[in-house]
Amino acid sequence: MMRTRPLKVALLGCGVVGSEVARIMTTHADDLAARIGAPVELAGVAVRRPSKVREGIDPALITTDATALVKRGDIDVVVEVIGGIEPARTLITTAFEHGASVVSANKALLAEDGAALHAAAEQYGRDLYYEAAVAGAIPLVRPLRESLAGDKVNRVLGIVNGTTNFILDKMDTSGAGYSEALDEATALGYAEADPTADVEGFDAAAKAAILAGIAFHTRVRIGDVHREGITEVTAADIASARRMGCTVKLLAICERAADGRSVTARVHPAMIPLSHPLASVREAYNAVFVEAEAAGQLMFYGPGAGGAPTASAVLGDLVAVCRNKLSEAPGPGESAYTRLPVSPMGDVVTRYHISLDVADKPGVLAQVATVFAEQGVSIDTVRQKGRQDKSGEASLVVVTHRAPDAALSGTVEALRKLDTVRGVASIMRVEGE
Amino acid sequence: MMRTRPLKVALLGCGVVGSEVARIMTTHADDLAARIGAPVELAGVAVRRPSKVREGIDPALITTDATALVKRGDIDVVVEVIGGIEPARTLITTAFEHGASVVSANKALLAEDGAALHAAAEQYGRDLYYEAAVAGAIPLVRPLRESLAGDKVNRVLGIVNGTTNFILDKMDTSGAGYSEALDEATALGYAEADPTADVEGFDAAAKAAILAGIAFHTRVRIGDVHREGITEVTAADIASARRMGCTVKLLAICERAADGRSVTARVHPAMIPLSHPLASVREAYNAVFVEAEAAGQLMFYGPGAGGAPTASAVLGDLVAVCRNKLSEAPGPGESAYTRLPVSPMGDVVTRYHISLDVADKPGVLAQVATVFAEQGVSIDTVRQKGRQDKSGEASLVVVTHRAPDAALSGTVEALRKLDTVRGVASIMRVEGE
Repeated sequence: MMRTRPLKVALLGCGVVGSEVARIMTTHADDLAARIGAPVELAGVAVRRPSKVREGIDPALITTDATALVKRGDIDVVVEVIGGIEPARTLITTAFEHGASVVSANKALLAEDGAALHAAAEQYGRDLYYEAAVAGAIPLVRPLRESLAGDKVNRVLGIVNGTTNFILDKMDTSGAGYSEALDEATALGYAEADPTADVEGFDAAAKAAILAGIAFHTRVRIGDVHREGITEVTAADIASARRMGCTVKLLAICERAADGRSVTARVHPAMIPLSHPLASVREAYNAVFVEAEAAGQLMFYGPGAGGAPTASAVLGDLVAVCRNKLSEAPGPGESAYTRLPVSPMGDVVTRYHISLDVADKPGVLAQVATVFAEQGVSIDTVRQKGRQDKSGEASLVVVTHRAPDAALSGTVEALRKLDTVRGVASIMRVEGE
Repeated sequence: MMRTRPLKVALLGCGVVGSEVARIMTTHADDLAARIGAPVELAGVAVRRPSKVREGIDPALITTDATALVKRGDIDVVVEVIGGIEPARTLITTAFEHGASVVSANKALLAEDGAALHAAAEQYGRDLYYEAAVAGAIPLVRPLRESLAGDKVNRVLGIVNGTTNFILDKMDTSGAGYSEALDEATALGYAEADPTADVEGFDAAAKAAILAGIAFHTRVRIGDVHREGITEVTAADIASARRMGCTVKLLAICERAADGRSVTARVHPAMIPLSHPLASVREAYNAVFVEAEAAGQLMFYGPGAGGAPTASAVLGDLVAVCRNKLSEAPGPGESAYTRLPVSPMGDVVTRYHISLDVADKPGVLAQVATVFAEQGVSIDTVRQKGRQDKSGEASLVVVTHRAPDAALSGTVEALRKLDTVRGVASIMRVEGE
């Protein structure tokens, strides 16, 4: 039942991901045609630098006018891999308007304005698919949207940024400091020249917003996500985690509140036990845990970035969107019917690992413990150690029980004001227990 | 855009999985309706023992006449969780004929006769979905069929049977023998009264057939799968694996041949290094690696069986099939266009770990090494050890390089014929390196 008129694909962007999409569309054309039920044809490629030589791509397809390409009217699917908010947003809505469905890898745009894009897709009866926007090749969007559509997801917890995982893994295995590990990541191509989006947690926060929205059938924007990056993580933090039988990971955590009436989404470094499966996620790999009421605990693991893995996710969506085109039935659209509000970080229930430099004299522990009690925070363990350097200082490591983040951060503020507390050497949340 | 006329679901079977499906359909009716775009209604439940009290199910829905139920003509979706070949096969085709799509958890039937069922579904324009047939709640069928539809899968390797993993894990952690570990699994409900389907590898072989067919876009039946169970695995094998830094797992392995012109599918116990992520899959959990050309290595992990996890997979399919009903467009059907032949086990390239009891005298190793050379099998490592019991015997542990399985098993046969070889204590394949 093969249709002979090919489906036409416009590619917006031809960088690391786009060029790989174009390459696979050519080398695996027969397989794609068999799986879709019709051949697919690259009908145009919009780029910024038309003079660059692009192996395997017919130069006649190259254009710098992306708007004209999406307006052509004969394009069935637009693949958007340029990233950023504009011109991507306008190009996608223009594509919908002119008859095309869209496959996008644009996490920043989806986390900023996903609801409006979904509304535009629905208005024109098109598909908007974006598996590649979260965790590269790892199937996550489709499993959450479709496989778990009959279940109730309560928690998503994962490592969704490869650059920061590479840096933290280096710090953990080599004892290196943050800057040294970042330099290595940059030299090896795991970090970009400007690593801000990764190391400050913006990239992970965008993914957390997308995952939380899909998982809880609500709307979560990047601005709703509490975000802390890894730039403040020190070699001492990592060593301290090791002593607790833990390691440090940058986690994206999306949770439904215990009463089910709100959700939270956050990205921050956290200590997790070495026995936790996420602790053994090395280098630039990603892994995501999904906890659902009936399914229990599922884990998805794989390469979270890179040209070929991201292209794999794009092409999986391309096949699905092409099939939907042929059957004239769009796939599942936005599911945001729960309209659950996103609570602030202060409401999140978590645990803190706090390392204090204190005066080495009697009564300090009692003072510190009183502060915790006043804030309603219960202490799990305390480790007290006099320094060998005769500085008159000791260190006090406190791990709390679970408490609202507002109470925990209030406790830290109160501790800072104690005369006997010379400094707060490290604060880190503890997860995965 | 909610439709008010409900979609009608007939449930065939109301055991551990079926009762959980019915329960969630009731307790989560509003969520399911919102996600589907129409309410779903349990219209009938076919059981063998109508007198049994079934909490939360209207007794008026219970029937013993499954055939009449699927022939009613007003059923939109039939959920088949009775298992086995007949009457499930006839009921499913009758359901297609009378207007219903089908969600099934029946691995045995799909591995035996999937092609005919798919053909029937296509003939009548219905859906046949079966995520629950492989690895319980873990999304695998949909990721392979859809997420990786634009990629080329070369290998699927995993632990897909929880009962055998529980037994092997017990043997590994406690040093127990096979019978003792099986008894514990039975007592804890991880093994059925007749454990044959699990411990002899039939269950895993059915899953391997289904996975291989989807992964390689071809047809693989359970009879094409080389199958070895775990009943011959001894405490000595496990101890021997430990000495090599390995553990023993029952693996399902589906591979595309290096020349791409055939595929293989097999289930057998194998040693894998402790550093391999599958080595840390404990108790009754399942985990599956998928290696694809562009995506790289992906892993999916979760509970592989149980009422609620399997129901989660069934309900995810139910939502998809209901959506397809509403849009009057069936989802992706069978994709078997490559028609790749399934090669026999002898053609599989693998490695052997062979433990021999030999005469403790000079020249034995030379004799043994000659046999390997004659069969064209290259040796990786040899460990030779005299016994302390003055029996005049020594043990010789040989790990080979990769070679065709036929050459490896030929080598073992030839070794058995040597006078100086008193016995072959253990043979096991080595994977995951």
